[in-house]
Amino acid sequence: MSSEPKATLKSVRSAIEEELSIFLNRESAYLNSISSDLSPVSDALTSFLLDSGKRLRPLFAYAGFAAAGGAIEKSTTRAMAALELLQACALIHDDLMDGSDTRRGKPSIHRHFESIHVQDQLDGFAPQYGLSAAVLLGDLALVWSDQMINSAGLSTEQYARVIPLYNEMRVELMAGQFLDIHEQTQKDTSTDRSMKIARYKSGKYTIERPLHLGAAMSAEPSNEIFAALSAYGLPLGEAFQLRDDLLGVFGDPSVTGKPAGDDLREGKRTVLIALTHERQSPAQAETCKKYFGRSDLDAQGVATLQEIIESTGARAELESTIEKLTDAALHAAESSLFTNDGRALLVELANIATKRSA
Amino acid sequence: MSSEPKATLKSVRSAIEEELSIFLNRESAYLNSISSDLSPVSDALTSFLLDSGKRLRPLFAYAGFAAAGGAIEKSTTRAMAALELLQACALIHDDLMDGSDTRRGKPSIHRHFESIHVQDQLDGFAPQYGLSAAVLLGDLALVWSDQMINSAGLSTEQYARVIPLYNEMRVELMAGQFLDIHEQTQKDTSTDRSMKIARYKSGKYTIERPLHLGAAMSAEPSNEIFAALSAYGLPLGEAFQLRDDLLGVFGDPSVTGKPAGDDLREGKRTVLIALTHERQSPAQAETCKKYFGRSDLDAQGVATLQEIIESTGARAELESTIEKLTDAALHAAESSLFTNDGRALLVELANIATKRSA
Repeated sequence: MSSEPKATLKSVRSAIEEELSIFLNRESAYLNSISSDLSPVSDALTSFLLDSGKRLRPLFAYAGFAAAGGAIEKSTTRAMAALELLQACALIHDDLMDGSDTRRGKPSIHRHFESIHVQDQLDGFAPQYGLSAAVLLGDLALVWSDQMINSAGLSTEQYARVIPLYNEMRVELMAGQFLDIHEQTQKDTSTDRSMKIARYKSGKYTIERPLHLGAAMSAEPSNEIFAALSAYGLPLGEAFQLRDDLLGVFGDPSVTGKPAGDDLREGKRTVLIALTHERQSPAQAETCKKYFGRSDLDAQGVATLQEIIESTGARAELESTIEKLTDAALHAAESSLFTNDGRALLVELANIATKRSA
Repeated sequence: MSSEPKATLKSVRSAIEEELSIFLNRESAYLNSISSDLSPVSDALTSFLLDSGKRLRPLFAYAGFAAAGGAIEKSTTRAMAALELLQACALIHDDLMDGSDTRRGKPSIHRHFESIHVQDQLDGFAPQYGLSAAVLLGDLALVWSDQMINSAGLSTEQYARVIPLYNEMRVELMAGQFLDIHEQTQKDTSTDRSMKIARYKSGKYTIERPLHLGAAMSAEPSNEIFAALSAYGLPLGEAFQLRDDLLGVFGDPSVTGKPAGDDLREGKRTVLIALTHERQSPAQAETCKKYFGRSDLDAQGVATLQEIIESTGARAELESTIEKLTDAALHAAESSLFTNDGRALLVELANIATKRSA
């Protein structure tokens, strides 16, 4: 038991990346033992997972674990790191569903395999090959995340507490994703519906559930600890998603790794857009209708829509909501149920999740 | 412990369908408690899973279990039934990757959601909605299969034996699927490569691994039992896939639920096609090149290709290979390591897997 009670976010992040790297090396070797034709699969997934990533979900899991008095070991680090594989599945499939060309400044997985098809002058239709590869690589990442949790070396008690939460988290993720694609097909927008999607897609998935998973790995988590973590995690999760909405419209491409105004081009119905629709003038509504969701939207069109969102006050309202939600989370982080170390980590993470620029 | 030592395939199939139905009811209610907008998801998955299906993988798991001396209980039935959810993921994603319009005589999942989009006059692009729904429903089926195994109520010992096999099976499935889509992009065909794909996609996934999973749920499975089940399962699995190849070209649409000659229209590079290519005359090669893989191939074109496959002797060779592989499996089924009940089930299933017409 190599316990490190005073772990920092930086040291935890390194430990997570090391475990991911060990897992990916081993499983890539296994794939390549089946056939060398599988090396593009293991290479693409390894690079997707190790080249970048904020590791937010494992870090929230660690904060929940530390807040409940847990001291880190290799087994718990492995189980937390598995959340990165689940997130890889979500992102790979999300990019395919959205038709996104880039992820973290590099080609998305379906585009990457499409390029391989073109470069190697393979037979058949390149986009279909890209689609198939993205479906399968996402599936494999989902299976790997399971495998990593299953083989992490958790005790029987830890495992029995973790797995039901992990399953619920994954069902909520898929439910939130479906509600999101469904929302994109509705004739009207609704802040209520968009907030609910934000809650399932991010609030629970990115923050509350990872915190709970972490707490479930501590020695004897009480029901009160789970409730106290929810009081922190749910508002913070919504704030996190609202920050995402703002970055999708106003983010700096050199930092986000996505083109400027990407969500506008995609016509993504977020809380920000629902608020804009509620507040816009008839003339602004006309303009929005003309530009919003056009895949060929240029810099001028992006700027026009940004101005409308700004002038209706929707952007300012979202910033103010993020601030209120973050304050609520920071207040909840002071719970006397948490350890001192845990409290400090929760505060640090709240700032990272809501003040980020990518 | 409601043990039924003399369970028949029919009674096991009913028990599996009952457990699936209970699980789907409970999880559908949970989804609908998140949002009524999720009812198309739960409806589509429930109908996909309960309306039809041969339940081959759970039945092979049961045969492996019975051969190793296991007596069925609700917990083991549940764990076996979970394989149907994994298979639902594989089929839903497979149909999307292949662009197949139908599955078991009904619209495939992406086509079903495409139709909902058109019928309900939803906003956006119907095929993109169909694609997204198929990605997410497949993912959800994969998560549900996990959840069903995790919550089946297996003992700690059973669970510890089952899960590593289950993970390996899923990795092999995804690996086999990738090799398959990769094969479709190659300039040449190869019986060796196609046989390897058949081995991973079906041999192991459909038969050997389910048998092993079942054996792992019995009280004290020996290494010898696993080896004896492989000796039966691997040849049978290859025979199963070769039967699939033949049905994809010569199957009766009213029985398969797929259009006649579907694999020819799709240009699927199977062992049957690789064999045909090895044996065809230059004139036949010309014709094949002209017709094979054309999505607009009509009944006349299908008949022309069927004639070539027939006249090269590829069809007859495959039938003879299936017979040899099945004989090897039937011989292995006589192992004295198996129980009498197990032996009878293995023989019954070998016939179902290789003499089927759908």
